[in-house]
Amino acid sequence: MRNFSYNTPTKIIFGEGSIEKLEKELSKFGKNVLLTYGGGSIKKIGLYDEVIKRLKKFNVFELNGIEPNPKYSESVVPGVKICKEKNIDVILAVGGGSVLDCSKAISVGALSNEDTWDILTYKVKHDKALPIVDILTLAATGSEYDSGAVISRPETNDKIDFGSKYVFPKVSILDPKYTFSVSKRQTAAGTADAINHVLEQFMARESSLLNDGMMISAIKSLMHNVKIALDNPEDYQARAELMYACTLACNGIFSNGTGPQNWPMHGIEHALSGYYDITHGEGLAIITPRWMEYILCDKTVDRFIKLAEVFDLHDEDKFKLAKKVIEEFYKFFESINIPMNLRKLGIDEKRVKEMAHHVHICEHLDWEEAFYPLNEEDIEKIILNSL
Amino acid sequence: MRNFSYNTPTKIIFGEGSIEKLEKELSKFGKNVLLTYGGGSIKKIGLYDEVIKRLKKFNVFELNGIEPNPKYSESVVPGVKICKEKNIDVILAVGGGSVLDCSKAISVGALSNEDTWDILTYKVKHDKALPIVDILTLAATGSEYDSGAVISRPETNDKIDFGSKYVFPKVSILDPKYTFSVSKRQTAAGTADAINHVLEQFMARESSLLNDGMMISAIKSLMHNVKIALDNPEDYQARAELMYACTLACNGIFSNGTGPQNWPMHGIEHALSGYYDITHGEGLAIITPRWMEYILCDKTVDRFIKLAEVFDLHDEDKFKLAKKVIEEFYKFFESINIPMNLRKLGIDEKRVKEMAHHVHICEHLDWEEAFYPLNEEDIEKIILNSL
Repeated sequence: MRNFSYNTPTKIIFGEGSIEKLEKELSKFGKNVLLTYGGGSIKKIGLYDEVIKRLKKFNVFELNGIEPNPKYSESVVPGVKICKEKNIDVILAVGGGSVLDCSKAISVGALSNEDTWDILTYKVKHDKALPIVDILTLAATGSEYDSGAVISRPETNDKIDFGSKYVFPKVSILDPKYTFSVSKRQTAAGTADAINHVLEQFMARESSLLNDGMMISAIKSLMHNVKIALDNPEDYQARAELMYACTLACNGIFSNGTGPQNWPMHGIEHALSGYYDITHGEGLAIITPRWMEYILCDKTVDRFIKLAEVFDLHDEDKFKLAKKVIEEFYKFFESINIPMNLRKLGIDEKRVKEMAHHVHICEHLDWEEAFYPLNEEDIEKIILNSL
Repeated sequence: MRNFSYNTPTKIIFGEGSIEKLEKELSKFGKNVLLTYGGGSIKKIGLYDEVIKRLKKFNVFELNGIEPNPKYSESVVPGVKICKEKNIDVILAVGGGSVLDCSKAISVGALSNEDTWDILTYKVKHDKALPIVDILTLAATGSEYDSGAVISRPETNDKIDFGSKYVFPKVSILDPKYTFSVSKRQTAAGTADAINHVLEQFMARESSLLNDGMMISAIKSLMHNVKIALDNPEDYQARAELMYACTLACNGIFSNGTGPQNWPMHGIEHALSGYYDITHGEGLAIITPRWMEYILCDKTVDRFIKLAEVFDLHDEDKFKLAKKVIEEFYKFFESINIPMNLRKLGIDEKRVKEMAHHVHICEHLDWEEAFYPLNEEDIEKIILNSL
């Protein structure tokens, strides 16, 4: 095992009715609350009214309309402004990963006099952030239990990964019932995102029995439960299992001590959604089997063999088995109705070279320690194979 | 899944050389340090000198000689006294679960004017504790990553479980190399303890695919790696995997959402080591297959079937398969040289009735929500079967 440091201070309050703890938890941080949310789905399901009802003793300010692939200029900047003007004490993020990520970016900008973009791109340091409490409405990114945020800036085609120990949510309220109304398409994309989080950690040179076991269990659980949730969106147990698996999938507890990691599929996908604003989980699902095919070789084949446990597959021929594993991932994503070609999402050859160059410059996928380093040409081929 | 709340704020610093972070981490809490340790094995391996060398800028006071099954009067009370007299800011626990548990008990007593035993038995409330930093030297109890402490008081035959969110260690320094010198007997007992922690969580009515998968992986990892560590005590990878698995095994992350739990094997074993001061992990290993045999019935058989994955066992006859699983656990513990009868540890029929009564009164194993409630007679039979 490799050396690691791990610390996730977030408190998870999980299960039906967890919102009852909201007032008590929020009041630990102050009176002035910035309520952040997305396009209004929390109003449709009655959660907005429920939250407002419970915030009578607080001064509530709002930032709404936060987009999927949350945007720097449209959402982060206005959020920082409100926090400064209204002396916000705590951010209450109600939504999925985009609302959370946006709130994390706001939380560091709010307590700094520096330009927030410079903080998010590590040009200037930060040493604090506003506390965040969240109510999750989408099982997907795991942002409710990690220290990362992905922010887009379409003006520059940037989609950046920001990480800071200061932005772990203080409290995450996870009630599976709030995901009952998530559309089939978003349910599938969210699950694909979480599966990919596990795969990014799994596909590394070094691992251990326990790490592998946790990761394989997580993938199996996600694959099993998403089918149930798609058939019956109000199946509590399936929604709950998806929620817990997604929460752990991006947190690092599965892969502490393994590595090294550099998340190549995310690196490539960030360009796709940076340029075309596609759904992150769909982009990842499309890339996954193409990246796998591309990197399959003597050096990597044993991880595929281990991964065969997900599907209970066996074959004496290692490469035949690895190819079966890749095929199974493809078939699985197809079976939950993810369009498995980038063309179906409106992406064609036109900007592939440009995106590959952008990924090459920004994501450092040619890191020689990586499981399988990718140069600019590799990236271009993988995107082309995904069209 | 059942509702749960989960929050483990402990920072883990894992791997060879982690002690380099000691000074920086400790200095966050103050200057006056109570260094707690056991019978001197940390001196033999040079760790004591290493620690003292790194504490030059601190005022160090010592509490040493902390026993296995740490004792209230001999260790907790003197520790509390030193903390109060010397205005201790932080406890540095160097050792295994016993040193840690003792330090946790001291940490709550140190900041209270109440009798520490009354706090540990919840007769009076507490709302704070001294911070604890630890350097672990034994992979076993998981105390380095949980909020529990087990304290013995032989005068009253008590061995109590204390839990408090205030006693999570702030920082746990986990260097697998410090476990290289752990004896074969303690290596086996520590692993048996951790396996039993997982089993106590696994054997419940409700679970999920992910929870089951994590727990089965942990048991497999522990079983696999303990054999390697027994053959070659300086195998870093095996010692590291044991350390990480033990750390997660008692923390709750494996079983969040499952349940209900009431840890019957621990309940019974606490009487055995409360009365006879035996090694906790050995007592648990001896009880495990006897408890399993005793509770095997229509209501419980399916959990055994699931547990068969640990050994990759299959049989169409459910009960035959369950019995094989129990036999495999027995054979495994025997294979790592755990004496599999209580008589071998000096326990005979004499005080069985008394112990069963004590367990019945103190441990509430007849809780009707339990996976398999045990009355006084059941407890007596399980102990008799373990002789």
